[in-house]
Amino acid sequence: MTDTTNTPITVLGLGLMGQALARAFLKAGHPTTVWNRTAAKADSLVAEGARLAPSVGDALEAGGVTIVCLTDYPAVRELLGDARLEGTTLVNLTSGDSAQARETAAWAEKQGARYLDGAIMAIPSSIGTPDSVILLSGPRLDPALDALGTVSYLGEDHGLASLYDVAGLTMMWSVLNAWLQGTAMLRTAGVDAATYATFAQQIAVGVAGWLPGYAEQVDKGSFPAEVSALETDARAMAHMVEESEALGVNAELPKLIKAMADRAIAAGHGGEQYPVLIREFERSEG
Amino acid sequence: MTDTTNTPITVLGLGLMGQALARAFLKAGHPTTVWNRTAAKADSLVAEGARLAPSVGDALEAGGVTIVCLTDYPAVRELLGDARLEGTTLVNLTSGDSAQARETAAWAEKQGARYLDGAIMAIPSSIGTPDSVILLSGPRLDPALDALGTVSYLGEDHGLASLYDVAGLTMMWSVLNAWLQGTAMLRTAGVDAATYATFAQQIAVGVAGWLPGYAEQVDKGSFPAEVSALETDARAMAHMVEESEALGVNAELPKLIKAMADRAIAAGHGGEQYPVLIREFERSEG
Ligand SMILES: NC(=O)c1ccc[n+]([C@@H]2O[C@H](COP(=O)([O-])OP(=O)(O)OC[C@H]3O[C@@H](n4cnc5c(N)ncnc54)[C@H](OP(=O)(O)O)[C@@H]3O)[C@@H](O)[C@H]2O)c1
Ligand SMILES: NC(=O)c1ccc[n+]([C@@H]2O[C@H](COP(=O)([O-])OP(=O)(O)OC[C@H]3O[C@@H](n4cnc5c(N)ncnc54)[C@H](OP(=O)(O)O)[C@@H]3O)[C@@H](O)[C@H]2O)c1
Repeated sequence: MTDTTNTPITVLGLGLMGQALARAFLKAGHPTTVWNRTAAKADSLVAEGARLAPSVGDALEAGGVTIVCLTDYPAVRELLGDARLEGTTLVNLTSGDSAQARETAAWAEKQGARYLDGAIMAIPSSIGTPDSVILLSGPRLDPALDALGTVSYLGEDHGLASLYDVAGLTMMWSVLNAWLQGTAMLRTAGVDAATYATFAQQIAVGVAGWLPGYAEQVDKGSFPAEVSALETDARAMAHMVEESEALGVNAELPKLIKAMADRAIAAGHGGEQYPVLIREFERSEG
Repeated sequence: MTDTTNTPITVLGLGLMGQALARAFLKAGHPTTVWNRTAAKADSLVAEGARLAPSVGDALEAGGVTIVCLTDYPAVRELLGDARLEGTTLVNLTSGDSAQARETAAWAEKQGARYLDGAIMAIPSSIGTPDSVILLSGPRLDPALDALGTVSYLGEDHGLASLYDVAGLTMMWSVLNAWLQGTAMLRTAGVDAATYATFAQQIAVGVAGWLPGYAEQVDKGSFPAEVSALETDARAMAHMVEESEALGVNAELPKLIKAMADRAIAAGHGGEQYPVLIREFERSEG
């Protein structure tokens, strides 16, 4: 591994997240320059060894790599609209969608910048620990950002970081919602949440282990019912909906699961295996 | 561990699943008696060493433990309605809901049977391996069923096995659907399913690890925003919905996730942490 802690870093934007990013670079030994619209937010970082740049232009010149972390993309375009970007390396960690990422990349590259778009799957307090996942897309970067946590490079397409980010969030909330649905059902029988959580965890981990195998079916576009046919699944889904209704708990999640499968069966896929539902997920419902 | 492979077992119902159950008991060395409405389905089991009972009554007398695995609960009641159950131990592994399980338990106990209700979270080909999860509820049973796979005893309430079963299935389909949603999004950028599956798996396993901690909040009924407030989550949810719509993929799952959170915020829980949504999951939407 090359020692990259000498790379000078600039952080533009010192909100909750920007401050955590700047602090992690300082701790890792990077010469760190900071700038924020409201300069007072730099005070504690300066006390810890950061240099406060007097202007955005000065901040951009100091950074071997410049991290941008503002509220949203319009704020980024407003801030950098008049700046000289020629020769800079920008890593935009502001949250946004894939279209904004690709547009901002095209614009920044036209100004002569090397531009990466990223997403932060972490909260400020975990930045600098392995739990903090930073997704990057665009041109490949030296490991200069390793101080932030677990950095994943996803590929050249600038839209990838935000796509993986929302896909990952969908998984996160889905696991949480399925757990809450099961918890609601089991509490009707006096089972406490902690008891059910262990079981829910085992199921989630077990099913997560099937994904690489199921992905092969999606990539091949061929869905033989090796384990179970969608039609068989649908019978158990009906049962899941009825049980939720009988218990008086919310049944929207069970109903949505069943509705998606029913549609795939109506489209003639009842004898195929679950991943054939990719056809429904790829189709806008409108 | 006591050697329980001497326990005589009877299996009533030799459909796809019943045959797999009987075969696992035979392989483990249990004296095994079988019965099926259509007797021919017993042929290969008899060749492997099972005894075919001439009647249900005879089959019930032979079994130290009698496993019942038919299409549904009405079939079970039809089959056992006239039988002498006094002194028998019945383990009903037929799929059904918690109300059917409790009703059948009350009925069978009135006839003098010891009754357990179970659920099979496995396919026939995995029966007899550790991957086969068998859930049991009712009076505690000696480990006589260990030949079937991983047997979990859940408690006295006969409804528990079917409740854990549907709760576990909800988790299973939720992980699969979240993965399909992400796969649909990433395929718009040319990322193949196999590449995304590894990432999805990591997220699912990571989030599953939070469940025991989140369960403590549910059990305490107190949801301080230690990691993130629901209001902050809701902003990222809006973004997830918009990205799905912009890509032209199905947005129903993202919309349901957002709708549940929005309702909790409207009910005044915006400053609390995600598990406060248990309030919404426990409430029928109607
Ligand atoms: N906090 C988290 O848990 C978290 C997690 C993952 C991702 N993120 C993402 O990280 C980004 C920053 O979040 P945050 O929590 O740091 O937000 P925050 O605390 O609200 O900070 C927002 C920052 O943006 C600056 N800003 C806004 N509009 C500006 C403009 N027009 N020109 C110049 N500066 C402007 C603010 O400057 P002033 O100080 O002058 O107002 C401040 O530095 C967001 O995209 C967020 O989605 C945050
Ligand atoms: N197969 C799986 O992957 C799977 C997984 C988990 C749980 N299960 C559950 O296991 C149970 C059995 O499933 P299976 O796959 O074995 O179904 P199956 O192949 O359709 O077999 C149904 C069995 O029930 C018997 N039966 C139906 N009605 C009857 C009646 N009125 N009187 C006497 N016998 C009757 C049938 O007898 P005949 O042979 O005479 O018709 C047959 O033995 C179901 O509750 C199912 O949900 C199955």
